[in-house]
Amino acid sequence: MTAPVIGRGEARALDEEDELAAFRGRFVIDEAAPLYFDGNSLGRLPRSTPARLLQVVEEEWGRGLVGSWSFWMDRPRVVGDFLAEHLLGAGAGEVVVGDSTTVNFYKLVVAALEARPDRRVIVTDETNFPSDRYVLQGLAEQRGLELRLTTGDPGPAEIAAAVAGGDVALVTLSHVSFHSGAMLDLPAITAAAHAGRALILWDLSHAVGAVPVRLEEDGVDLAVGCAYKYLNGGPGAPAFTYVRRGLQEQLRQPIWGWFGAADQFAMGPNYRPAPGIDRFSVGTPPIVGLASVEEGAAMVAEAGVDRVRRKSLDLTDLAIGLFDEWLAPLGAELVTPRAIERRGSHLSFRHPDAWPICRALIENHRVVPDFREPDVLRFGFAPLYTRFVDAWDAIDRLREVLARREYEAFSSERSRVT
Amino acid sequence: MTAPVIGRGEARALDEEDELAAFRGRFVIDEAAPLYFDGNSLGRLPRSTPARLLQVVEEEWGRGLVGSWSFWMDRPRVVGDFLAEHLLGAGAGEVVVGDSTTVNFYKLVVAALEARPDRRVIVTDETNFPSDRYVLQGLAEQRGLELRLTTGDPGPAEIAAAVAGGDVALVTLSHVSFHSGAMLDLPAITAAAHAGRALILWDLSHAVGAVPVRLEEDGVDLAVGCAYKYLNGGPGAPAFTYVRRGLQEQLRQPIWGWFGAADQFAMGPNYRPAPGIDRFSVGTPPIVGLASVEEGAAMVAEAGVDRVRRKSLDLTDLAIGLFDEWLAPLGAELVTPRAIERRGSHLSFRHPDAWPICRALIENHRVVPDFREPDVLRFGFAPLYTRFVDAWDAIDRLREVLARREYEAFSSERSRVT
Repeated sequence: MTAPVIGRGEARALDEEDELAAFRGRFVIDEAAPLYFDGNSLGRLPRSTPARLLQVVEEEWGRGLVGSWSFWMDRPRVVGDFLAEHLLGAGAGEVVVGDSTTVNFYKLVVAALEARPDRRVIVTDETNFPSDRYVLQGLAEQRGLELRLTTGDPGPAEIAAAVAGGDVALVTLSHVSFHSGAMLDLPAITAAAHAGRALILWDLSHAVGAVPVRLEEDGVDLAVGCAYKYLNGGPGAPAFTYVRRGLQEQLRQPIWGWFGAADQFAMGPNYRPAPGIDRFSVGTPPIVGLASVEEGAAMVAEAGVDRVRRKSLDLTDLAIGLFDEWLAPLGAELVTPRAIERRGSHLSFRHPDAWPICRALIENHRVVPDFREPDVLRFGFAPLYTRFVDAWDAIDRLREVLARREYEAFSSERSRVT
Repeated sequence: MTAPVIGRGEARALDEEDELAAFRGRFVIDEAAPLYFDGNSLGRLPRSTPARLLQVVEEEWGRGLVGSWSFWMDRPRVVGDFLAEHLLGAGAGEVVVGDSTTVNFYKLVVAALEARPDRRVIVTDETNFPSDRYVLQGLAEQRGLELRLTTGDPGPAEIAAAVAGGDVALVTLSHVSFHSGAMLDLPAITAAAHAGRALILWDLSHAVGAVPVRLEEDGVDLAVGCAYKYLNGGPGAPAFTYVRRGLQEQLRQPIWGWFGAADQFAMGPNYRPAPGIDRFSVGTPPIVGLASVEEGAAMVAEAGVDRVRRKSLDLTDLAIGLFDEWLAPLGAELVTPRAIERRGSHLSFRHPDAWPICRALIENHRVVPDFREPDVLRFGFAPLYTRFVDAWDAIDRLREVLARREYEAFSSERSRVT
């Protein structure tokens, strides 16, 4: 399956027809700055966010003071309900926002393990996001559990095989892989996990706001995800937690805090979990961060995830077409699956010199992709602000870097990136 | 021990002599708004904070984008080092900022329990802050541990008795009680816990920024605390975690995340904890919240905690003097200890009608204290922006409410407050 190659003029024409083109103007973009292809790592700043944050800080905090808790109290669930309805295909009362993705992941993994006390195995993929793998390792070590690893972007058959023994408590995977850009078959894998009577927990960090997610329709048990990538919520923005309604009262959330307690201000001697999704909250919620998440997510909701997804596929189609024509002959390998139903919104290219290539793109060509160990170059195509001509230019410059071996000048460098 | 009663003019004179008076002008204060005595719950907004947050959001995020991680990476420890040096009496590399107080408390409690695997008891006080008690309950239930409760603001003798059996893994208390306003004898209680070979974990939420804290000098093992009270970091600001240097490498932090891992961007197959305090971090740090904490804490550091403490004691002396003269005869009881070494920066009064009294103060007199179940009225005296004349006026108005039984008009109301 090869996508058609187009010229730069055709890319420009696509921008002119783009029904989402106007959204680009709603982000802070310095047109003199390098071309940014790292929205899959840190999304851009919406123009409306600074004013919104000032309103929260100056009015709600500065003037409203402690009285603002009358409405702040509900913010984790209000923002959660918004994400549920517009971006996650979940119901009201199934999503709450707060804490980091990793802390939320920990809470749900522990809750899932304790809901399946007779099962001693957790299934994940060896290429899953490190923070998720580390949480699982820590719990496996502490509880004497087995961590059963699939070997790279599994499909439903691999998951069916992994759970076939009836010993698996939990299957947890990323919907879109941070590393390969592959989108896993969420509905079929969820069904496979359920067929083995395992619970399933999806990390939606690289999916939410970029691909349609239908948690309820697909019968997903548990999910977490981050708000600073395609939701443009800002660095370290609070993350979300989804728990299927029918499961909420059965699960024991392990970190018992006052914001997860019923009748919180009774401050009674004994913890009773709050009804519903609130029990998955812990401490005082990050009010400024919640506003930033809401502001970013609202723009994605306004654009509509289905339209965002269509443009994302058009952008990656264009890039894959140019890849086949220009880059494959120069030694780069496309890691991301070509099938549109297996592709997220970033593309990963493998090349033995990926790191110096990344440096050459930034230094010589003012194009910002990112690098992931050991040999992967990632290009994020965030549809709300990435133009077709940007995608064309980026691949064109990558071609130059490869064709002229510009990366050789950077081959002695080594560094860390996010 | 009765403090002297002074007149309103004398209170004004104290303000004129106050060496910290100028700090009040550096907060956002609407002089037409009610008198605010809830800085022990949510500190006021520093005037400099909005501009600082805009700088982080517009410049660092909006323009710097993912490149800003080159310095954001270290922010949890940089802000931690600042708190350590200026407010906590701890060394560089002993404090990290991120996550909520409760999540941090959970991490340290689990780490402490696993460091004393042969001991099955946790000691705390029955009046300790609910979120802390709830975390302990959850862990005690899950691990089959005993929660041994002292009965209200214990001294070193009670703690010595509680740990005498040699079965206590951890003693954990609040330095200043959210409920009574009592300041516990941190050095002596720490020594008593250590004499029983238990670890000690202090919650400094109601102490930090209001009373001098000398974690290193007092040999404290572990501490957490919140930044939105006397540090004025904003609603739900990230909290801090302190771990004594000599203990850091011995402890197993239970939530293994990528920001707690050594060589984070190697993203290798196996988690190795980062050296030092960094292993107590988990997920991506809340960058905007960290800036807000730093901005608030910097002002307290500039004022100097010793000066803050002196003014705090002068303010509470004034209020206690007026209490004895005016309020005790009207049926109110001072819950907070009178001894200056046992007093934090808020005063708690007990009265059977505390809730309607609170309502009457707010509605009739534009004074904002807060209420804690079942019968306590709290007045926080945040020294950086509370004037002596404010303290005088507040107690005077409380006198009116009591003397005229104004609270009776509110006695049918019942509500929740923070």
